[in-house]
Parts: sequence; structure tokens; C-alpha cells
Amino acid sequence: MTLLVVGSVAFDSIETPLARRENILGGSAPFFSYAASFFGPVQMVGVVGDDWPKEYTDMFAAQGIDTSGLEIVKGGKTFRWSGKYHNNMNDRDTLDTQLNVLGSFEPKLPENFKRAQFVFLANGAPSTGLATLEQIQGADLVVADTMDLWIKTTRSDTDALLKKIDGLVLNDSEAKMLTGELNVVTAGRKILDMGPKFVVVKKGEHGSMFIGPHETYVVPAFPTENVVDPTGAGDSFAGGMMGYIAAQGKLDSNTIKSALVYGTLLGGICCEGFSLESFQRIHREEIDQRFEQFRAMASF
Amino acid sequence: MTLLVVGSVAFDSIETPLARRENILGGSAPFFSYAASFFGPVQMVGVVGDDWPKEYTDMFAAQGIDTSGLEIVKGGKTFRWSGKYHNNMNDRDTLDTQLNVLGSFEPKLPENFKRAQFVFLANGAPSTGLATLEQIQGADLVVADTMDLWIKTTRSDTDALLKKIDGLVLNDSEAKMLTGELNVVTAGRKILDMGPKFVVVKKGEHGSMFIGPHETYVVPAFPTENVVDPTGAGDSFAGGMMGYIAAQGKLDSNTIKSALVYGTLLGGICCEGFSLESFQRIHREEIDQRFEQFRAMASF
Repeated sequence: MTLLVVGSVAFDSIETPLARRENILGGSAPFFSYAASFFGPVQMVGVVGDDWPKEYTDMFAAQGIDTSGLEIVKGGKTFRWSGKYHNNMNDRDTLDTQLNVLGSFEPKLPENFKRAQFVFLANGAPSTGLATLEQIQGADLVVADTMDLWIKTTRSDTDALLKKIDGLVLNDSEAKMLTGELNVVTAGRKILDMGPKFVVVKKGEHGSMFIGPHETYVVPAFPTENVVDPTGAGDSFAGGMMGYIAAQGKLDSNTIKSALVYGTLLGGICCEGFSLESFQRIHREEIDQRFEQFRAMASF
Repeated sequence: MTLLVVGSVAFDSIETPLARRENILGGSAPFFSYAASFFGPVQMVGVVGDDWPKEYTDMFAAQGIDTSGLEIVKGGKTFRWSGKYHNNMNDRDTLDTQLNVLGSFEPKLPENFKRAQFVFLANGAPSTGLATLEQIQGADLVVADTMDLWIKTTRSDTDALLKKIDGLVLNDSEAKMLTGELNVVTAGRKILDMGPKFVVVKKGEHGSMFIGPHETYVVPAFPTENVVDPTGAGDSFAGGMMGYIAAQGKLDSNTIKSALVYGTLLGGICCEGFSLESFQRIHREEIDQRFEQFRAMASF
């Protein structure tokens, strides 16, 4: 079934303890879309400047990602983010942010995008999410990501968006911030009172948790030593999860649990290279092999 | 099969954001022993002062815990620890430590304890662990806990002990400290080079990981909102794990994975009350029900 994502597209400059890259493709929409594309077609909505290389459009097209919702602003510059990771590869400092065309982004969905059945509002201003949903007609499932920035700075928009979505994906620290609760399960349940029917809490290197009205699922992290660059891991988690759900076209308990596992795997794969490198090296078959390997490690 | 534990016995004074208790029974040996006793008999080795109430001995006996290795020092006082938990119920400050009889503890194993097949050296000075192993004759499996304090202050004893044990149980932060590695999987593998055949990394509210020479297993945390007092959770994890392994009498992959799960469950149950309260309220049947509930949450 059709999966649509609205999110940021960025040129990232990243420094890790071991390496450094300048102006590589990043942003929530590319990471999400590529991760989801292993399961089926994706419609991407976002904005870039005319510094956008056509080869990226071609790369996405070859992967089944339709970028006709990616607005190219003439004379504009693509959003730029620059960050430096600490030795633990988890904490990072933002060195520079240049919003550029993202600052005045108003999502414009092509006609055939408006009937998307599965919608993901990737990390971005909640007003962008709300503007997207006004254009969507009768989606089966709408899931949003959020971020500490929006919880702190645009709380009323965040609250309004929470009332219009089916599911929310966020970090454990964000779940605690959003609710004022210190226990992540309590925080998750409290978010259900704010609108969403389910919450997925991402715990980075510690796995993830699904909290619904009647069910809770937990998935550990896939143990890995090969962390090259964690940028985009959370978006890739969401992409793997939503891509699998959209491909199944349903949301029963087995689908949810497998979706969390695919999210975990894609989040982990993302970390194995800069930008989309590790996705470009891998195929669905290898992802499914990792799924079985993970099952052997985690089943009891 | 016989399971022996050597560890501290304490009277704890604990303050949490919600409640406060004075001089309640604690220490690594009681938490470990009670958690393990749900699976079979336990032999406890430790030291207390003559402030030790006989009712505790009776309580342990009723639970199948043999305290004939618990030395009662006449005119001595039992080890006392006092701590205060932060609002997150994870971080804590030690307010006071009075070693008392624990300061000069030399484990003396009763004759019938010396042939224990499964041995756990709970948190304590590595020299205590070494002195215990000198008295043990041909155990099938020796596993030790460690702690940041011993890694920092008695490193050469710690290294000597690592060469004499089959398995090491420790926190993720301790694994990183012991090896200087920041990735927990890399840290675990490096510990295998120091002596142990396997390492179990406890990640508190984030679950646990088993790292052997050829296998890795991961278990998420059991999601709980009901945290009353986390004191003893790590020792209870080890007790549940070792109790199950000793009852099975083998160490194949299914046993290891189930043992990690039982450890997770007992660690979680421990947090639901002060001291051994929550263990005294529960039966093996309920623990097995939680096992199945956890399997439903975590299987995929």
C-alpha cells in the first residue's frame, strides 16, 4: 500500500571520533524513505534548494521512491546541519544549523499523494505535519515523529497534532519531557491520553517499546560494534517500521512486533556508514537474514 | 544441583522520593539467595554481627536457603549502608557506609558447601572471591559479579579473579570501565580475553546481554511502572539467572536465554518493594506467568 513521508532533506557535515564528511545527504525524509523502500514504494514530500543534484533524484527513483513531492526552490539553498559526535557515538553537539529553504517550507502534495494510505510525519515543525494532514484524504494510518525542540518551542501545535495522529514515535527522553513523567512506561501511557492510539518509544542502543491501550511490546537493540555514524538512525527505525506495516497493510500484534524488529534492524544498518551508504550496500535478502539472526539471539 | 553464594549481608537505610525505611535487610547475598530460591536450594556464605535477628535465619530456612555458612561475629555489628534515590529511581547517592564485620570478612565454607556445583561470587572484594574459590572443590560453574569500586581500587585482585571464573556479571558502565571501551559489545568481547568464558551485561531498565565466544543473546527489560525501591535488583537478576541455571544443571543456549529472562523478571520483582518484601509476596507460579507474559511481549 502507499506510504507517504513528509520530512526534512539536508546536507549534513558530520564529524565522528574517526572520520569527517562534508555536505552529505541527510535529513529525516531521505533516511526514512530509503529504509522504508526495502519493503515497498515510498512517496517523499520535502523541500530543497537548486543546489540539489539530479543524481539524488535518480538514486531515489531507482529505489522506488517518488520524489515528485520534493519541491525544488529556485535560488534557494537546501537545509544544512553540522554536528560532532562524542567518543561514545551517542551524544553529539550541533555545530551549525542553516534552515535555508526549510525555514519557509509549506508542504504541497501532488494529487496522487493525497490518497496515501500510510502517512509518516517525520521530524519537523508540527505545523508542517498539520498542513500535510489537511491535504490527506482518508489515510488508514497516520504516525508522527517528534523532537525535544518542538515539545519545548511549539507545544500548542504539538498538542494539536497529537490529537490528529494514530501513532507517535519518539525517544525515551522526549516521552519523559512531553509528559513530565520519569518512568518511560508511565510516560507512554500518558501520551495515549493526549490523542495517539499507540506510542513507540525509541531507546537508541537499548531497543524500543510499543505501548498501546491494551498491549505492550518490547524489542532489544540489535547488538553491534560497527557504528560509523548514528545520524539518521531514528528516522531509519521509523522507515523500517512504517515500510513493513505499509507492506503488510494491517496492524495486528505480529505485524507490530515484526515492524519494531525491522525498524531496529534498519536503524542499526543506518549506523554502519555515513549518509545512505550502508543502505546502498544492502539488499532485502540480507535484512531478512539479520531478522532471523536477531530472532535467534532474542527468542526465548 | 547445589548453588552456593558468597556475598554481603547488610542492614540498609533507604530513602526514595516516596518513602523511607530504616535498617531493613539487604546486601547482595540475601537478594541473590531469595531470588535463586524460587528454583532450588541455596547455600549462603556471609558475615553478620550479633545484632542479626534469628527470625531472618528462620525466614531463609523456610525458603530453602541454608545459612550455616553465615558467620555471626559475637560483639560485632552487621554491615550498614544508607542511600537516597533520585527522582528517576535509577541514580542514587550513598549517604553512609559502615563496613563493621564485613571489613574483616574471611569466608569460611562449611564442609558440605565445599562441593557446591554452581558458585556465585556476589558483589564483594575480589579477595573474598579468591578466598572462597580456594575452598571450593571442582565446581561445574563459577560466576562472579563485580563493581566499579573493585575495578578502581583492587584492579590486580580483580584481574586475578577474572582468570579463575567461568562467567562475569556486571553493569554496562562497569564493562566500559573495566575495558576502556565505549561500545558495550566490544567491551564484552574484550572481557572474554581477560579470562571468563562468558559475560552477562546488565543494563538496568534496558535489559541485559549475554556475550560468549560464539554467541550473543539479548533480552529487553520487562516494562514496569511499579518501582518502589531498586536496591538489590542487580543481585536479584543474578539470583534468578543462576538459580535457573543450577536447577537445569546445564548451560545450553535455551537454558542461557531462559536464565536471562528469569534474571530480568526477578530483578523487576525486587524493585516492587523494599528489602525482600516483594519476593515474600510472590510464588514460582506467578513468576512463570510473568515469563509467559514477557514472551508474548518480546517474541517475534
